[in-house]
Amino acid sequence: MRHLLAIDELGAAGIEDVLGLTDSFVEVSERSIPKVPALRGKTVVSLFYEDSTRTRLSFETAAKRLSADTMTFSVSTSSTKKGESLRDTVETIEAMGVDAIVIRHGSAGAPWNVAQWGSSAVINAGDGWHEHPTQALLDSYTIRQRRGSIQGARIAIVGDIKHSRVARSNIAAFTLQGAEVTLVAPRTLLPPNLDGWPVKVSNELDAVLPHVDIVYLLRMQLERMTDALVPSLREYTERFGLTVRRAAALANDVLIMHPGPMNRGVEIAAEVADLPNALIIDQVRNGVAVRMAVLYLLLGAGTEWGAETSTANAREARAT
Amino acid sequence: MRHLLAIDELGAAGIEDVLGLTDSFVEVSERSIPKVPALRGKTVVSLFYEDSTRTRLSFETAAKRLSADTMTFSVSTSSTKKGESLRDTVETIEAMGVDAIVIRHGSAGAPWNVAQWGSSAVINAGDGWHEHPTQALLDSYTIRQRRGSIQGARIAIVGDIKHSRVARSNIAAFTLQGAEVTLVAPRTLLPPNLDGWPVKVSNELDAVLPHVDIVYLLRMQLERMTDALVPSLREYTERFGLTVRRAAALANDVLIMHPGPMNRGVEIAAEVADLPNALIIDQVRNGVAVRMAVLYLLLGAGTEWGAETSTANAREARAT
Amino acid sequence: MRHLLAIDELGAAGIEDVLGLTDSFVEVSERSIPKVPALRGKTVVSLFYEDSTRTRLSFETAAKRLSADTMTFSVSTSSTKKGESLRDTVETIEAMGVDAIVIRHGSAGAPWNVAQWGSSAVINAGDGWHEHPTQALLDSYTIRQRRGSIQGARIAIVGDIKHSRVARSNIAAFTLQGAEVTLVAPRTLLPPNLDGWPVKVSNELDAVLPHVDIVYLLRMQLERMTDALVPSLREYTERFGLTVRRAAALANDVLIMHPGPMNRGVEIAAEVADLPNALIIDQVRNGVAVRMAVLYLLLGAGTEWGAETSTANAREARAT
Repeated sequence: MRHLLAIDELGAAGIEDVLGLTDSFVEVSERSIPKVPALRGKTVVSLFYEDSTRTRLSFETAAKRLSADTMTFSVSTSSTKKGESLRDTVETIEAMGVDAIVIRHGSAGAPWNVAQWGSSAVINAGDGWHEHPTQALLDSYTIRQRRGSIQGARIAIVGDIKHSRVARSNIAAFTLQGAEVTLVAPRTLLPPNLDGWPVKVSNELDAVLPHVDIVYLLRMQLERMTDALVPSLREYTERFGLTVRRAAALANDVLIMHPGPMNRGVEIAAEVADLPNALIIDQVRNGVAVRMAVLYLLLGAGTEWGAETSTANAREARAT
Repeated sequence: MRHLLAIDELGAAGIEDVLGLTDSFVEVSERSIPKVPALRGKTVVSLFYEDSTRTRLSFETAAKRLSADTMTFSVSTSSTKKGESLRDTVETIEAMGVDAIVIRHGSAGAPWNVAQWGSSAVINAGDGWHEHPTQALLDSYTIRQRRGSIQGARIAIVGDIKHSRVARSNIAAFTLQGAEVTLVAPRTLLPPNLDGWPVKVSNELDAVLPHVDIVYLLRMQLERMTDALVPSLREYTERFGLTVRRAAALANDVLIMHPGPMNRGVEIAAEVADLPNALIIDQVRNGVAVRMAVLYLLLGAGTEWGAETSTANAREARAT
Repeated sequence: MRHLLAIDELGAAGIEDVLGLTDSFVEVSERSIPKVPALRGKTVVSLFYEDSTRTRLSFETAAKRLSADTMTFSVSTSSTKKGESLRDTVETIEAMGVDAIVIRHGSAGAPWNVAQWGSSAVINAGDGWHEHPTQALLDSYTIRQRRGSIQGARIAIVGDIKHSRVARSNIAAFTLQGAEVTLVAPRTLLPPNLDGWPVKVSNELDAVLPHVDIVYLLRMQLERMTDALVPSLREYTERFGLTVRRAAALANDVLIMHPGPMNRGVEIAAEVADLPNALIIDQVRNGVAVRMAVLYLLLGAGTEWGAETSTANAREARAT
C-alpha cells in the first residue's frame, strides 16, 4: 500500500487491513495520553485546494497522535492565481522534506497526478465529485462497530448522488463488503448514466425506507437550488428528508448516518440527528482512528508500534 | 472548577486560586526552557468566531508551555454560512477528542451553551459585549504584581463601556477584590441602565483623574464614529483620551493600563503608552502565565506539576 | 551575529559561517528522523505582512527540525487596518515570550526597525524590493554544492531587477564571493540608477548567454504588464525568457536557477525547468537546511548541537 486514492484500488483486502488496524487506534484514542510515537520524525502535509476545517483537523489530529509533524498548505483561490502549477507546488513541498501529502482538490483525478509526480505517500481527501476514500472507511468501520458486519446490510444512500464523492466512495466500499445499496434521489441529482453501477435506484424514499437497515443521508448543498436542480428546500425535505415522521416509522434497529456538516431541518430533521440510532458523532470519532490506521499503514511500515507504545508509555509513566 | 465562563461564577476564592498559581507559571516562563509536561496528551482547541490573533496566540502559547497539543478552528463569517450550527461544530470537535475549548463568539452567552452541550472544559475568550474573564484575571495579576494588592485601589475605566466585555469582566473582578471603580465615558457609550452596578459614573475625565490610583483605558473602536456615537475621534481624544498633558498631571505612582491593541493618538497618546507607569506590556506578558494557570486548574487536576517539572528538567538537563 | 537583515551586514565571513554549518544540517535532513533538539524551548514567530506559504513553511520546517516551537502571526491587509502599529505588534509578540522573529513586510527597512525595538533575533524574510538574505544564502549554497565554488563564476540575473529583493540580495552575495554578475532586463525593469553596483548590465539575453556559467531567472510578476512596464508576456518571453531554443544553445554545464514560484511558459519554458542542469528543486531543499543554520547561529549559541544530537539519537534509539 503506497497511496490511498480510491476504494476500488484499495480492494476488499485493503479495507480489511485498514479496519482491522483501526481497532487498535480506537483503543489508543481512549487512553489518557492518546499518543504513540509510531511516526516520530515523519511529516504529513495537508494540501487543501478547497476549505474543509473538519476533514483537515481530523487528519492532523490523527497525525499528531502518531507523533508525526504536520504542515498545512491552504491554497485559497486567490493564491492559486499566482500561477504556480499543482505540479510545482507538490515538488516544492516534497523538496522541503515530506512523507505524506493529504490532498483535497476540486478536480477529479488530481491525487493520481500528485502520486505520479512525487515520492510521498498520497491520501485522497476528496477530489471533485469523484472519491473520498477515508470517509467510506470510517463509515464502514462505524457500521461494523454497531452491527458487527456490513455483509448483507441493506443501505439506502439518499440525496445529491450526482455531485457526491462521499456517495461514490461509499457505494464502492459498501458493495465490496457485501452490502446491498439503493440510491434514492430526484432524477436531477442522479448521475446521467448508472449502467454498471452495482446499485438499485429509486425516486421514492417512502417506498425504500421499510426495506433498509441503514439510511445514509447526504448533505444538501444549498447551491443546488440556485442551479434549479431542486425546486425548493422545503419540497426537497418533504420528498427526500428524513423527517420526524419518517424516522418514527423506521424499524427500531435501523441506523442513521450523515457525513456532516448537517443542514438540520433540510436533509435530516433536527431531532432525528440526535436519536440513539443516529451514528453521526461516532462517524466523526472513528474518523480520527481510521485516519491513524491509514497513515500508519502508509508510513509506519517496518516499525512495531505496539512495542514502541509500551516503551513510550513507560517513559510517560516515569515522567508523571 | 469545570469551566471559566464569567468572573462572578469564578468568585473571589476562584480568583485567588488562579492568581496564586500564576506566580509559579511566571517563574516557569522565565526559565531558559519555559516548558512543563503538566498537560501532555491533552488537546486544547481554539474555536474563534471572531478574529483575534493576539488572544489566540496567548492561549496557544500557554497551552504549548504546558505541553498540550493545540488545534485552531477559525470560523470566518463565510464558512459559518455553510450552515452548520454551533452545537454541531462543538460536538464534531469533541468527537475528535478534545479536552478544552477556548471559544470567542459574537453572541453573549454562547460559551454557556458550549459548556452545556459537551464534556470539555470551556474557557470564555470573549462573548459579544458580555465577558472576557482571562483579560480581567491578567489585569488583576498585573496590578497586584506592581502594587501588592487591589484592595482599596481607586480604578477609573475610561471609554466605550457599553460595547466592552473587557469592562464588564474587569468591573466584576476589581470590585470582588475590594477596589473602587469609576466608569468614565460619554453618555452614548455607557450602558442604558447601570442600576445595581457597584460603580460610580462620570462624564468628566479631568474631574476623576486627581482621585485615582489606576487609569484603565479601553480601545476606541473606530466604527463607533460611523455609528454617530461620538462626534469625531479628535473630540473624543480631547475629552476622554489620556493625553500627554493629562498624564503629566497624574500623581507619580498612578498606573496606566490598556487591553490592546492600542489606537495610539486616540484613547492614549503615543508617548504615554511608553511611560514607566504604563503596564501594557506587563499585561500581555502576564496573560500567558494567567492562561497557563487557568488551563492547569481546568485540565491538570490530580497531576502534581511541580514534581513533573523537576523530572522533566532532569531529563532536559541530561539531554543538553 | 544577532540578526540576519541584509547580506552586506553579514559579510563574506558571515556567509562562510552559515554555508559551512549548512552541510551539517543537510546531513540531519537526510536522517530517517530529521530532528535535533538544538533549539528546544525556543520560540520562533513568523510575522508575515505579505502572504508567502512557501517561505513561511520553509522557515517553520527548519525551526521544527531544530525542535523549536513555532507561531504564525499572519497580518492580512484587513487586520492591519485595526490600526495597531508594527511596533506595538512586535512588542506584544515579544511580551508573549519569543526568541526569534522572521518578518516579511512590504516596506524596505521594516526588519531594522523590529531589530531596534525588541530583544529578539530578527530574520529578514523579505522587505519590499530591498533584501531577502536567506534566499541569497540558499542560492549560494546550491551553486557551491554543484560547482564547488562561486569564485569566478559568471552569473546572469535575468528579469525584473527593479522590483526584486531576490536580485538585490543575490548581487551582494554573489559578488562578495567573487562571482561576476551581469543583469539582463528591459530598461523599464532596471533600477533608475545603477552607479556603484558591482555589475555589468545588458538588454540582450542572446548576447549574454554564450558567456555565462549560471542563468538565474527572476519571476515575472504579471502585474508588471498592467503597469505597462512590458508590452506583453509573449514579447517578454521572446526577448528575455529561457526558451527551449535558448536552453539548447547553452553549454552543457551551465546551471539554471529560479527562486520560485515559476511562471512556466513565461520567464522559463516548461521543459527547461525540468532539465538536469536546472537546480530549482535543490534550491527549495537547501532552503530548509540554510534556514536551520541561520536559526542555529542566532539562537543556539553556547549549545553544542552535535553532542545534543547524539544524546537525542540515543534517546530515539531507546524509544524505537
